[in-house]
Amino acid sequence: MKKLLLLVMLVPCIGIAQNDDSVFIKKIADEILRNGKAYDLLKQLTKNVGGRLAGSPQMVKAEQWGLAAMKQQGADNAYLQQCMVPHWVRGTGDKVFVAEIDNKQTARNLDAAALGNSIGNNKAIVAEVLAIANFDELEKRKDEVKGKIVYYNAGFDPTNIRTFKSYGETGGYRRNGASRATKYGAVGIMIRSLTEATDNNPHTGAMAYNDSFPIIPAVALGNQDADYVWALSKKSTFKVSMVTHGKMLPDTIGHNVIGELKGTEFPNEYITVGGHLDSWDLAEGAHDDGTGVVQAIEIMRTLKALGYKPKHTIRFVLFANEENGTKGAEKYAEEAKAKNEQHIFALESDAGGFTPRSFGFTMGKEKLAKIQPWAKLLKPYGIDDLSEGGGGSDIGPLGKMFGTPLAGLQPDSQRYFDVHHARNDVFENVNKRELLLGAVNMAALIYLVDKYGL
Amino acid sequence: MKKLLLLVMLVPCIGIAQNDDSVFIKKIADEILRNGKAYDLLKQLTKNVGGRLAGSPQMVKAEQWGLAAMKQQGADNAYLQQCMVPHWVRGTGDKVFVAEIDNKQTARNLDAAALGNSIGNNKAIVAEVLAIANFDELEKRKDEVKGKIVYYNAGFDPTNIRTFKSYGETGGYRRNGASRATKYGAVGIMIRSLTEATDNNPHTGAMAYNDSFPIIPAVALGNQDADYVWALSKKSTFKVSMVTHGKMLPDTIGHNVIGELKGTEFPNEYITVGGHLDSWDLAEGAHDDGTGVVQAIEIMRTLKALGYKPKHTIRFVLFANEENGTKGAEKYAEEAKAKNEQHIFALESDAGGFTPRSFGFTMGKEKLAKIQPWAKLLKPYGIDDLSEGGGGSDIGPLGKMFGTPLAGLQPDSQRYFDVHHARNDVFENVNKRELLLGAVNMAALIYLVDKYGL
Repeated sequence: MKKLLLLVMLVPCIGIAQNDDSVFIKKIADEILRNGKAYDLLKQLTKNVGGRLAGSPQMVKAEQWGLAAMKQQGADNAYLQQCMVPHWVRGTGDKVFVAEIDNKQTARNLDAAALGNSIGNNKAIVAEVLAIANFDELEKRKDEVKGKIVYYNAGFDPTNIRTFKSYGETGGYRRNGASRATKYGAVGIMIRSLTEATDNNPHTGAMAYNDSFPIIPAVALGNQDADYVWALSKKSTFKVSMVTHGKMLPDTIGHNVIGELKGTEFPNEYITVGGHLDSWDLAEGAHDDGTGVVQAIEIMRTLKALGYKPKHTIRFVLFANEENGTKGAEKYAEEAKAKNEQHIFALESDAGGFTPRSFGFTMGKEKLAKIQPWAKLLKPYGIDDLSEGGGGSDIGPLGKMFGTPLAGLQPDSQRYFDVHHARNDVFENVNKRELLLGAVNMAALIYLVDKYGL
Repeated sequence: MKKLLLLVMLVPCIGIAQNDDSVFIKKIADEILRNGKAYDLLKQLTKNVGGRLAGSPQMVKAEQWGLAAMKQQGADNAYLQQCMVPHWVRGTGDKVFVAEIDNKQTARNLDAAALGNSIGNNKAIVAEVLAIANFDELEKRKDEVKGKIVYYNAGFDPTNIRTFKSYGETGGYRRNGASRATKYGAVGIMIRSLTEATDNNPHTGAMAYNDSFPIIPAVALGNQDADYVWALSKKSTFKVSMVTHGKMLPDTIGHNVIGELKGTEFPNEYITVGGHLDSWDLAEGAHDDGTGVVQAIEIMRTLKALGYKPKHTIRFVLFANEENGTKGAEKYAEEAKAKNEQHIFALESDAGGFTPRSFGFTMGKEKLAKIQPWAKLLKPYGIDDLSEGGGGSDIGPLGKMFGTPLAGLQPDSQRYFDVHHARNDVFENVNKRELLLGAVNMAALIYLVDKYGL
């Protein structure tokens, strides 16, 4: 009887709570969709600052912009957190072209971009190309590699519905293609860009060498040129001329930009929301990850504008160095450890500013089961899927260090790799409403975690 | 006991059927995502034909293109179905500008587009502007209207999550804004474009006059200029100069383009899949509705390529005249009635070639309940919502005449009204994978309806 009574008393309470929540989340959505600043902020970041690789002068400018934006949009406290970051520069004058086909000279240009962290040869090499499908073929034909430029044709599988699956399958060619080929004596490598885009923009991104073997230049080709090279390899022998100018300078100073809303009940327990401020140098870093940056600021602005007093301290973090080092992420977690901070949740947006579809969580199954009713609250704004697996490179160290529950915004993924790390990752390719809807769902999730815990 | 036995026997069968279905739907998806022709076909239609309003020479070219495409992509039978269509022409030399502010001459251009079906004044009028928020204000200030150009500022409500809701709320200003203002003596109207786009492209679309009142010119302003005019009206009196050249010529001949795959069991029962071939004249008609057109052809190609023998005859229809008359739709239904055809289902794609989110159905609740298990089969390809309410202008008459169950593809709606009826509705704004995924889900639905009925 007591149990029944308790149940009878609880049911209306839960009903009221869900109703209160849906009312407040509607307020969040209306505020963001009516008065959101994220789109204007993104325009500032992309057009006034532009591409901003860690260590670059543009990144310094971006940090100052971020700090000012945090203050203007109402942070209780805003500051820079210093860390050391890698300092890669592309240099100028890179050029890749087909120099010879079946022993006849030619000069057919290839739209290519040196991979991030790759070290340039500075003086053109001209070498025969060994075009192969994948690493399996590399191993089979390892005796043919010496003295050649290896071209890897491995591309996205179009039958994968989620494009991140394709990225996962092919990312190894960008990261390790050079080190695996130089082991067999290759003098340079080219990869197909990690994209299904129909255009010819090459897509850069991080790679690493293996210290045991010689350093060789490494580039990505635009996919139309990748098609051309692959077709050419089926009918002709050909040589490519390649010169790149990448340099790794000594590590330098970078900063995470942090804004806070102070917790009223548990000021020493932290919720982190963020994206990364750095971007590759080739473009404006709009979807990667300007949108995550401005969504974080937008959520702060909105909670403040609505007079929301969080129970926990909420940190809005623009991380310093995701693209080629995650040094900002490591610093943030180390500092948290040094200060013995308690981190109860972290959320990242680093998959583009597209229509939100789901949140992916890295935390215990029980916790994930417990929050499933929240899906109903988010569904009116586009997210009806709270699923296992997700987070982000910048919040990963928090998870590892403290076991902090992590989540990542998972927007519709169809267009992300069209622009990812390429020169067309620009402001004009971001849709204002899609961007704002991402912020709506993120703000709602932060509100629910702050109110109910995990 | 018998019942139980039957159940025991049935359960594994259903299990097997669902498995067969998911295998076949995966084949559909793989075929479309690997070998899909929809994107190339869309490039042909948008770039070789371009804008194609009913009655225009481009529409004749589009019909020939469509017929050839149906044949090339494997129709058992392809033909044109003649109908009479309205024939509106925009003419050339339209110009709208602010001519006077607070009695001082000026010449501030406004990016404007005459509304479809509107009749031009051919000689510039210069008149004071009465800027009002909405129809309510029109009624309150009707005594001020005479001799003026009325500007309606009613725009999309940004807090609507689905943009079609906003379109529904504001469409009346485009359709009836002129007739309601001319009743009170207005000499012209301007509306805010039916979009939330951040650019300044004006969006045209169908309007109609009321025969009882004078015909006046009617234009839509790009939204940046709409903002300008609205702000100006708050601080100044001003006059606008307006000249448009629209003409309604006598009805002319148009055609629905029809391709068929013959039914093997019920050849006289029809399933219709389509979009509309006509478009407004200002752009290339890419999302509206080139994508629906090429998705229909893609589904036909795919079923044929997979050797699928439909039970029912499937008709792939490119309708002649959705934008300013739906005469193609009416003809198709009338012809069906005349031939006593049985139409068991019709599906339209006319909401853009964006990532598919749901199908909306207009049919009995029982039928809708019955097909809910199909959502599980579609979910891997993006659609997990089979909901009430949906169809399309071109299949509407079938529903009215025969009670045929109808459905409409409902893609993500955030970007649709950025391009709808505006000069930026071009091929470049269509994403290949989003387009193909729409075709995947539509083909799967057609397969399920053909196999199981409704």
